[in-house]
Amino acid sequence: MSESSAPTPNAAPDPTFVLVRSQMGENIGGAARAMWNFELDRMRLVAPRDGWPNPRAVALASGAGRLLDQAGVFESTAEAVADCDYVYATTARVRGLTKPVLEPADAMDEARALKAAGKKVAVLFGPERAGLENEDVARANAIITVPVNPEFYSLNLAQCVLLIAYEWRRARGSGDGALAQIELASRIEVEKLSDHYEQRLDEAGYFFPEQKAEGMKLVLRNMWGRLPLTRADVQMLHGMLRQILRKRDGG
Amino acid sequence: MSESSAPTPNAAPDPTFVLVRSQMGENIGGAARAMWNFELDRMRLVAPRDGWPNPRAVALASGAGRLLDQAGVFESTAEAVADCDYVYATTARVRGLTKPVLEPADAMDEARALKAAGKKVAVLFGPERAGLENEDVARANAIITVPVNPEFYSLNLAQCVLLIAYEWRRARGSGDGALAQIELASRIEVEKLSDHYEQRLDEAGYFFPEQKAEGMKLVLRNMWGRLPLTRADVQMLHGMLRQILRKRDGG
Repeated sequence: MSESSAPTPNAAPDPTFVLVRSQMGENIGGAARAMWNFELDRMRLVAPRDGWPNPRAVALASGAGRLLDQAGVFESTAEAVADCDYVYATTARVRGLTKPVLEPADAMDEARALKAAGKKVAVLFGPERAGLENEDVARANAIITVPVNPEFYSLNLAQCVLLIAYEWRRARGSGDGALAQIELASRIEVEKLSDHYEQRLDEAGYFFPEQKAEGMKLVLRNMWGRLPLTRADVQMLHGMLRQILRKRDGG
Repeated sequence: MSESSAPTPNAAPDPTFVLVRSQMGENIGGAARAMWNFELDRMRLVAPRDGWPNPRAVALASGAGRLLDQAGVFESTAEAVADCDYVYATTARVRGLTKPVLEPADAMDEARALKAAGKKVAVLFGPERAGLENEDVARANAIITVPVNPEFYSLNLAQCVLLIAYEWRRARGSGDGALAQIELASRIEVEKLSDHYEQRLDEAGYFFPEQKAEGMKLVLRNMWGRLPLTRADVQMLHGMLRQILRKRDGG
């Protein structure tokens, strides 16, 4: 056990905003400006459509260019949030996946409490038109939805980033203190757990019939993503699976 | 006394957003979209730079074009808010004028309470770069400032409109109930009171020396604008001034 496994009195960094498969460089630049209005400066990019670095993003970020210089670029959402403890996904409408759904204010209150307890928080933002895929949302613990006019939704990427950043600035950390106190597993640990189960279940012929396999995998991954699993939970779940297989195989 | 002077159980309409001397039609269209995301549809325009109607505003308002069709156009801020009971001015930085300064959430809580008590509320938004002039702010009861990064402010017009509209949607009307219960004078009544005093004071040589006159007039107009004057207050203040002058002239 290293000293880092002991509860730390130090707060974690401010939330990381993860822009997933953004299309226009201009919108990435606009998102950087929106963030920096509220003193958020940790940006990550997942597979930006037009590659990286992008001169149009830089042009539009005027004054907030530092965020782009320091932005990490990742190939997948899972990699982008691997070192995070708690992940929110922003979506306009909640699709079939089972997840807690929060308004921005409640989510950022909770995020403040998580940060204060040393937890690393990330917020996912989808591409301009389509929004996040279910595969991305499955990797999040909870969903943030902006309470817009049910007849009219026209928030662009920078505006969505702006509202969440604004609520972060306003939040007072009065969110779920119990959640903040949990020794949460990091996202990479959850991802590996999810892979472990999926692989063994696949070998066991669980994902049947064939045409339903992808949907079944998504439901499972979504469950692992949602649960506030601790490190101990993850270890135990790995161990349970290993033990069952050992028994089955006559080990 | 007509029946309308009795306290009414009916709520007033939602707040009117007044765009003062907006420059780009695109931004007026973007502001309309931002408002309609949160079900606000009452827009007024003061002297839009490129005239009205503006086809570029229509093009950018896609889906919220009705707001533009119904927007009233006025030559001055005073005329645009004449029939309102309580006016907020949005500014990035608070200049010399003495006014209550509120964050968007507190202002919209208060505005909800005012609406519930039958008061007509307006919010002023300045032109893109320069923001509102002191002459505009002087006509408001209070100032709304978005709590941004002191080192970085880059909210555009539609984003500023978006944040206030978002807070309107969130607000629960838990604001200053005492203020909402007051039988506030309308802005046109306050404007006329202000004119009355300015004219008589001017005749009395009050605005002296010459080079300070404009500044003194602004300070005075700002005070009238700020005070939560009732109809009765306004009548009394008119009467006081008339009486003083009558006495002076030996009437």
